[in-house]
Amino acid sequence: MGSIRTDLALEARELYQQQNRDYIPGVKVDEEEVEGVKISRVHILSPLGQESLGKPQGNYITLEAPDIKNRDPEFQQTLSKIIAQEIKKLVTLNKNSVTLVVGLGNWNITPDSLGPKVVDRLLVTRHILEYLPDQIDDRLRPVCAIAPGVLGITGIETGEIIKGIVDRLKPDLVIAIDALASRRTDRIGMTIQIADTGISPGSGIGNKRMGLNKETLGVPTIAIGVPTVVYAYTIGRDSLQMLIDKFVDHATADSQFYQMLKQMGEEQLDALIHQVVTQELGDLVVTPKEIDLLIDYVADVLADGLNLALHEDMTIEDVKYFIN
Amino acid sequence: MGSIRTDLALEARELYQQQNRDYIPGVKVDEEEVEGVKISRVHILSPLGQESLGKPQGNYITLEAPDIKNRDPEFQQTLSKIIAQEIKKLVTLNKNSVTLVVGLGNWNITPDSLGPKVVDRLLVTRHILEYLPDQIDDRLRPVCAIAPGVLGITGIETGEIIKGIVDRLKPDLVIAIDALASRRTDRIGMTIQIADTGISPGSGIGNKRMGLNKETLGVPTIAIGVPTVVYAYTIGRDSLQMLIDKFVDHATADSQFYQMLKQMGEEQLDALIHQVVTQELGDLVVTPKEIDLLIDYVADVLADGLNLALHEDMTIEDVKYFIN
Amino acid sequence: MGSIRTDLALEARELYQQQNRDYIPGVKVDEEEVEGVKISRVHILSPLGQESLGKPQGNYITLEAPDIKNRDPEFQQTLSKIIAQEIKKLVTLNKNSVTLVVGLGNWNITPDSLGPKVVDRLLVTRHILEYLPDQIDDRLRPVCAIAPGVLGITGIETGEIIKGIVDRLKPDLVIAIDALASRRTDRIGMTIQIADTGISPGSGIGNKRMGLNKETLGVPTIAIGVPTVVYAYTIGRDSLQMLIDKFVDHATADSQFYQMLKQMGEEQLDALIHQVVTQELGDLVVTPKEIDLLIDYVADVLADGLNLALHEDMTIEDVKYFIN
Amino acid sequence: MGSIRTDLALEARELYQQQNRDYIPGVKVDEEEVEGVKISRVHILSPLGQESLGKPQGNYITLEAPDIKNRDPEFQQTLSKIIAQEIKKLVTLNKNSVTLVVGLGNWNITPDSLGPKVVDRLLVTRHILEYLPDQIDDRLRPVCAIAPGVLGITGIETGEIIKGIVDRLKPDLVIAIDALASRRTDRIGMTIQIADTGISPGSGIGNKRMGLNKETLGVPTIAIGVPTVVYAYTIGRDSLQMLIDKFVDHATADSQFYQMLKQMGEEQLDALIHQVVTQELGDLVVTPKEIDLLIDYVADVLADGLNLALHEDMTIEDVKYFIN
Repeated sequence: MGSIRTDLALEARELYQQQNRDYIPGVKVDEEEVEGVKISRVHILSPLGQESLGKPQGNYITLEAPDIKNRDPEFQQTLSKIIAQEIKKLVTLNKNSVTLVVGLGNWNITPDSLGPKVVDRLLVTRHILEYLPDQIDDRLRPVCAIAPGVLGITGIETGEIIKGIVDRLKPDLVIAIDALASRRTDRIGMTIQIADTGISPGSGIGNKRMGLNKETLGVPTIAIGVPTVVYAYTIGRDSLQMLIDKFVDHATADSQFYQMLKQMGEEQLDALIHQVVTQELGDLVVTPKEIDLLIDYVADVLADGLNLALHEDMTIEDVKYFIN
Repeated sequence: MGSIRTDLALEARELYQQQNRDYIPGVKVDEEEVEGVKISRVHILSPLGQESLGKPQGNYITLEAPDIKNRDPEFQQTLSKIIAQEIKKLVTLNKNSVTLVVGLGNWNITPDSLGPKVVDRLLVTRHILEYLPDQIDDRLRPVCAIAPGVLGITGIETGEIIKGIVDRLKPDLVIAIDALASRRTDRIGMTIQIADTGISPGSGIGNKRMGLNKETLGVPTIAIGVPTVVYAYTIGRDSLQMLIDKFVDHATADSQFYQMLKQMGEEQLDALIHQVVTQELGDLVVTPKEIDLLIDYVADVLADGLNLALHEDMTIEDVKYFIN
Repeated sequence: MGSIRTDLALEARELYQQQNRDYIPGVKVDEEEVEGVKISRVHILSPLGQESLGKPQGNYITLEAPDIKNRDPEFQQTLSKIIAQEIKKLVTLNKNSVTLVVGLGNWNITPDSLGPKVVDRLLVTRHILEYLPDQIDDRLRPVCAIAPGVLGITGIETGEIIKGIVDRLKPDLVIAIDALASRRTDRIGMTIQIADTGISPGSGIGNKRMGLNKETLGVPTIAIGVPTVVYAYTIGRDSLQMLIDKFVDHATADSQFYQMLKQMGEEQLDALIHQVVTQELGDLVVTPKEIDLLIDYVADVLADGLNLALHEDMTIEDVKYFIN
Repeated sequence: MGSIRTDLALEARELYQQQNRDYIPGVKVDEEEVEGVKISRVHILSPLGQESLGKPQGNYITLEAPDIKNRDPEFQQTLSKIIAQEIKKLVTLNKNSVTLVVGLGNWNITPDSLGPKVVDRLLVTRHILEYLPDQIDDRLRPVCAIAPGVLGITGIETGEIIKGIVDRLKPDLVIAIDALASRRTDRIGMTIQIADTGISPGSGIGNKRMGLNKETLGVPTIAIGVPTVVYAYTIGRDSLQMLIDKFVDHATADSQFYQMLKQMGEEQLDALIHQVVTQELGDLVVTPKEIDLLIDYVADVLADGLNLALHEDMTIEDVKYFIN
């Protein structure tokens, strides 16, 4: 898939389909739409599927909810409920199962602060259940949470910190929240990916070096990711690709120019874009100007989704009551 | 200059020169380089110059300091001193002159928070000079400051708020700080424009409807602006333009394709880009991922520059002493 | 009332009653309890009442809501509705009446940040009604808001800033929100005073030098204040007073010591406390350790109360919908 | 030492001396004054000393620096250097020794946010030394840092989190930063305690249940604490004690009242104070109103002190250069 970077299985599939054909061996896909939210479930069933999409074997659920941009409080609740349902499909928790929620990312950098902000809004209960087991509501299950900060802040690989805590605490489930890079600007803040494969090394905005998954942590690990940026490089490159496609349509099939365009492969396109876009563009990201407000809204959505999924028979009103 | 938006006189000049020739009637330009900072002074001397560049008559000083990206503390001081010198060239203050510094922009939206952050770091003295005139250091002059917030927060045009305060306070000078949009990503946070024309309606990131200048406020008004975003639209469009230029070089001069490309004017390019980039892209901005840190650094630079310019015979150490 | 400082009419009345008798000439008081909130309405009707209580003539409504400390979301709504009702009793607004809400205080100092935080959560509409009158919901009325910052930040008396804006904007009503000092720790964050007398010079935590009221601004001015601190000095002094009262009870009526205690008047007590409490204590304040959370909660309560009072036929859900 | 709570060895010694006599068995004390900073070193040498002062055996260095209240930038540097020297006396680090700095406390509650703020300002290097050993300045040693958040935020005992990370990372030294409660308001923010005993369970503002020390972590652990609050209860009680002392002086030696006062022991005083101060006072704290600014200043002082102590031959300018 060349030099274009995506953390979304959905986009990996789209890229595959663009360049190949519709059927992907070892991959099963189903889609449905619920209250304005498009739910795509990509199941990578075999090593072949894994190789095709460049993503580890497992289940990837993607919610596409363009209405997020309106930041409507009622839709927020709808979306939280859908997220809760999808999380519940991936995990089995009993009354005593301890869940550790990990908020990845850097709280000082707005588009990377989603994970810490979700942790901040979470209904955390493990300590109450441990110290005051009798005073606690029956519907609560033990949830704990940490936002450890990124490598540049701590000097420690996030994976090392989490591994140390998991080894000590022995939770039954880890859920890691992360901000992702997307290929498409209309996905920023509006697409939510839930995967039972955990997090691979090098994914997310912050370039983790160590993965967070069942292999590294020793417990089932769910990853929830939301694209919050598109690399500016991607925009430049996509603009070029679309322009070339357009020219191909206009050029006479036997002209020399048509031949030139057709022969222009991935590598040449990359070389061209490197001339066109300034060198620094690689570190530049595209976000909505109101990214601060968007991140706050999505953090609320995810936190409520987790609160509904991890405790039992709770409404959002119940959760708000317990959090205060 | 079509649909491309720039708040920088420097870029207006570049655009003019690209499309026309080097000499611009009614405009005088001088340039110098001081300690790694390129200083360009564009003097728009006549209505003709004003029309050519699409900027009001007056003096525009632009500092280009790519080293800002290293966020080095020593360079920070160098740059503050240069800013102070350039401000002093544009204004004449005596011992009792009152300066009102206005921090424009929205503190909740990182790339638009530059103005409020500068105000936050300013050495404000007007109240001390008024209430305790005897206890005050001789080098201090009366400075006051306000960050009124944007229209969406206050429900009041920023210009109305400032006009009300200026009418009541009758300062001798207004200095307005604003975050700007640039055409080029390598200018983000690294170019500082100081202009004695004040601020025109519609400039800045926040789309002010009323200008802040000598006409509207009745007192001399300096505007200091720093580009903190590039509209994503600009990136897409520039990528296309460069690709077309490239194709023109490759195409045979008499081919039909060459003709097509040459005929592709501003309007057609705009139409094309509208097809290529998604509709929402207009509201999307390109920033470095570390925009939060960059804004903090630049706010420090500008605040120290103002502190040195508005008080007399001060060093940065003196300023720090007084601020605490 | 000596050296003890209070911004609450309720406490002024209590002090008066302690030192004198129950009936206060020129003052009418009525009380009621609604859903756990004690509502006291002190009406100072004449110059005599004004002199007795040391507060300007006018109406002071005090809500005592100790349940605030639980930070329960349901009670939050109840309280907002009561606040809205009481505000409506003091003001008459028609469809086009413009209200300017002023958030007094310093956003950098937690117990003084209540006013700015209320402004931050307000449904601000004046600009929409002005620029897009046809697209707006019929129930909205023009509200604008500003948190100008304190003297130490701006170098300008808050009263000067507001006077400048009011003269320019000519609103029909000003509502000023302020953090107050109380005499009693159990009032911190749990007592809300609404007064149609505006704000007197020297009141509030931040020591304003200029009042905000009908005389200074030229428009009706409501003040809403919430105690967020008790001066540490007050605690020391009250402890001493209570101890002395206790000793008086124990001492034999004709003993020399009893005489000494009885003779100990306000002045001697003040002299004594000055020996006992350290000099710096005057600047020290007593707050709950969780003052940050408490201020957030109370800011939500007040903002919703204002939103319900200033617009028409709104529910809190409606308000949330419009704010996003 | 009854019901009065102090985290400072210095205050434990003062209390002991008040109630007993000057010489404390098993405790050695030396004092010196350096550039306006009073340095007291309390060495608890034996179990007897440990019992007398109610603090674990070890070395406690206390810096008293009342000039902190002026928040002067020059004094800030002086104090950081003294802190660095004192830390160096307690630890032996070689070039490869890894130090883990732990910022205890709650970033959402101002007086408890000192630890996280110090971590935020630290020169963290472990990751650079690990991944780019050749590119790094010779004077840097591996430092890493974490602010894990408090029990109410994470649902996990802070001690458990740190133990997990320490077991995984195996640092050579742990330094824990914490906000403390003091008995005296004039110590708030102005006294710094450095102890090689680590942190005992139940100390600090946040009521930790598990200690952080060599026994629990398995590596040498330094604790650095700064009082940021006095419990309001302490103020009330101290006021009473001083008043009683005063009355004792005035009363005739053979009077009944004198006898009553003399007999008033610790328990009765506690009973009395419980009548005097309202029930909630126990949770109330006394802080300067500007606690936000004070915490920022002290966090800078401590962070620079650590930066100078943990790296080699560094100046504060060097540190600032590396941090940016």
